[in-house]
Amino acid sequence: MEEKHLKYEEQYEEKYKAHWDKVYEDLSNELTDNFREEFLDMHPYDQSLFFIEQSKENRMRIYAYLSPDELAEIMINIELDNTPAYFKEMNPRLGAMVLSEMPADDAVDIFNEMDKEEVVSFLTIMDKEAAEEIKHLLHYEEKTAGSIMTTEFVAVYKSQTTEQAMQQLKEDAPDAETIYYLYVLDEDKRLVGVLSLRDLIVADEKTKLEEVMSEKIVAVSVAKDQEEIAQMFRDYDFLALPVVDFQNHLLGIITVDDILDVMEEEASEDFSKLAGISETDRPNDTALAAAKKRLPWLIILLFLGIFTASLIGQFEETLDQVAVLAIFIPLIAGMAGNTGTQALAVAVRGLSNGDYENQGKLRLVLREATTGLITGTVCGAVISVVIFFWKDDLFLGFIVGVSIMASLIVATLAGSLVPILMDRLKIDPAVASGPFITTINDIISILIYFGMATSFMSYLT
Amino acid sequence: MEEKHLKYEEQYEEKYKAHWDKVYEDLSNELTDNFREEFLDMHPYDQSLFFIEQSKENRMRIYAYLSPDELAEIMINIELDNTPAYFKEMNPRLGAMVLSEMPADDAVDIFNEMDKEEVVSFLTIMDKEAAEEIKHLLHYEEKTAGSIMTTEFVAVYKSQTTEQAMQQLKEDAPDAETIYYLYVLDEDKRLVGVLSLRDLIVADEKTKLEEVMSEKIVAVSVAKDQEEIAQMFRDYDFLALPVVDFQNHLLGIITVDDILDVMEEEASEDFSKLAGISETDRPNDTALAAAKKRLPWLIILLFLGIFTASLIGQFEETLDQVAVLAIFIPLIAGMAGNTGTQALAVAVRGLSNGDYENQGKLRLVLREATTGLITGTVCGAVISVVIFFWKDDLFLGFIVGVSIMASLIVATLAGSLVPILMDRLKIDPAVASGPFITTINDIISILIYFGMATSFMSYLT
Repeated sequence: MEEKHLKYEEQYEEKYKAHWDKVYEDLSNELTDNFREEFLDMHPYDQSLFFIEQSKENRMRIYAYLSPDELAEIMINIELDNTPAYFKEMNPRLGAMVLSEMPADDAVDIFNEMDKEEVVSFLTIMDKEAAEEIKHLLHYEEKTAGSIMTTEFVAVYKSQTTEQAMQQLKEDAPDAETIYYLYVLDEDKRLVGVLSLRDLIVADEKTKLEEVMSEKIVAVSVAKDQEEIAQMFRDYDFLALPVVDFQNHLLGIITVDDILDVMEEEASEDFSKLAGISETDRPNDTALAAAKKRLPWLIILLFLGIFTASLIGQFEETLDQVAVLAIFIPLIAGMAGNTGTQALAVAVRGLSNGDYENQGKLRLVLREATTGLITGTVCGAVISVVIFFWKDDLFLGFIVGVSIMASLIVATLAGSLVPILMDRLKIDPAVASGPFITTINDIISILIYFGMATSFMSYLT
Repeated sequence: MEEKHLKYEEQYEEKYKAHWDKVYEDLSNELTDNFREEFLDMHPYDQSLFFIEQSKENRMRIYAYLSPDELAEIMINIELDNTPAYFKEMNPRLGAMVLSEMPADDAVDIFNEMDKEEVVSFLTIMDKEAAEEIKHLLHYEEKTAGSIMTTEFVAVYKSQTTEQAMQQLKEDAPDAETIYYLYVLDEDKRLVGVLSLRDLIVADEKTKLEEVMSEKIVAVSVAKDQEEIAQMFRDYDFLALPVVDFQNHLLGIITVDDILDVMEEEASEDFSKLAGISETDRPNDTALAAAKKRLPWLIILLFLGIFTASLIGQFEETLDQVAVLAIFIPLIAGMAGNTGTQALAVAVRGLSNGDYENQGKLRLVLREATTGLITGTVCGAVISVVIFFWKDDLFLGFIVGVSIMASLIVATLAGSLVPILMDRLKIDPAVASGPFITTINDIISILIYFGMATSFMSYLT
């Protein structure tokens, strides 16, 4: 009875751990039947967690003890980057069988991680029908509806009755990704309606589907971008969305569980870009691996920094005469960098959310320029006053203040304009990442500052 | 037949626009019946899009033409920050009726946006039962399971047969948030199992639920953090998750559509922190509104920058003698800022994803220190060589190289340590945002640089 007083979650975790240990014991002692029974009782995601923690020896046992479709369930739940290694460990025939048993969209994701050669060899020894399906899906461009859709859906005809549809549902249920929506086709196999399982259950058994189906069906074209699709799921609270070709033939469906992954992927992409890190830079890499991923960026930025240094070098004479100017270099460059990053972040988030179309983008740039004018004027005024009282030098205050103002306007503009231009020119906007914008703004702001200082030199000395 | 050749999406958009215009005409001409028929034929999200685009005059018509539960559907789909304004426009009795008709979790979200006074007055005139439910939910802390769960779920008893369960489902369907999971309770109303609608459909009608239900049920405690819950949805592909108290009584369920919003919210939070912008900084704000949101941060950073300037000021004598030192200030500060942001981003993403527990955090900090050592050594070596050939000054190259190396180690360490410490000390980690870390690293790197330069002054002149 003691147990009853434990918090629900603690109870759950204790049971979970005990079960895990038991499965591990049975596997290590090669008690095949016990292992199978207890392992298969775990949620597929937990099975995958267990699997990746095992030694190679134990993994080989798992390959031997489980059937291809049981192994497929595990593989689906493993981080994609890690799967090819496991398929290399397996006997190629087993690997091909496992791939054949997966939903085609998941198999395609794994193929996308493999070398060309491996893909071809697996496709040759795989089950013919599954291979055809996968080859078909492999054609769709990455990050489009076609690449994330599944072809395992329930389709019915509008002339069927609800009773017939329910019968078909029972037959299709084991294979379909979702049975909560039934897609209704006309005699030309065009998508004409949708029926939720909810509607089906409450409808009279003899009704024709065309009478109960909803014709207010939202579908996406097979080439639509996955980020826009995620947005639709969020707005419309869909559990699944049909994918059609330009003639409105049903090609597949996208389910909400895949959208959760898309959202994570897209958010992580924006976040990584802003920080100038690789999306694969994970806390569990080794230091050397992490350094390797970050160094390319840092070296580029180092050389941009050397360029900045050589620019300042042009003003060495000015600096020699008025050394105090150097004091404000980090302040001006830093402020330009910070405002630029703010503007960049707002623009990137807006582009991701599809917050604006072409017309809206121009508006954003104009708005950012005005925002830069306001923040620049305020910050410029503040620093002028501070420097006047601190250094008792009205003119130095004026130079720094005006430089801050000009830098903030340009930096804000650059932060919003660069990603929008990249997007427009279809250049990979990864180039417009945070550190890059920051470095560009460093350079511009320093040019403004030293340009002004050199021009008004006579007032400063 | 021409139409058939249009792309599916274009066809859809044309129809959509025509329908929208028709609805607008009917509303403006006060054709109540036509308006009702066509408007209610739109998806609730589209209804909300239509609604927010209307003039106040037309909005008042909508309040008059629609029933409270029809209005509730619209209000649920509007951006939360905007809803209180609409409730102020409505007659308070109508507003109260609309709030009573909503799922309780959505009403709570809206109440969280209203002033205390408004909340109290609505709760007093609302339907008693709905008000009780809402008061109950309002007690749960924001961003926990309790605050995002709904209490409209389908619960059945383990002694019932599948036929009885199906019957109950048909009755509960109109109100329940999801009918795709049935939660099975024992005689003490504790959660003991779950049954998907899929299982129910394929099961024999006379079977007892306890024989077909799954006991492998995953539930979360009512106080669990919403970010961890989103992670569970992603990992386990749930459509809904039950929420229980510490005695395992079923309190509510969380559905995947709410999780999509949570994921967007959490991703936006991390992203905004990294850029030092407010989460409410949206592309459709006015320039003045945007400037107001960004200025507080910029002013803080300005004063931190002034502090940096005063630090460099301490080394004015050094600068006076060796003006060339100033050239490398932006390079060193910039590199420190960039590596710090990289480390920060990896740490923040790790903390968000729950990638590591306490032990893993120490490991991360150590790993970041080593990563900093590697990147610092490489960048330091590169810059030394470049400066040697460029300025023909071995010692200047040495000073800058060692400063870069030391700065990169410290900056990487700071980038990972600060957010982890904040998280540990339960301080709002918003303080550890990108610009803040960058500025701290500016200061540290400049101190290292000028400290070294001043110590080895005699070699430089």
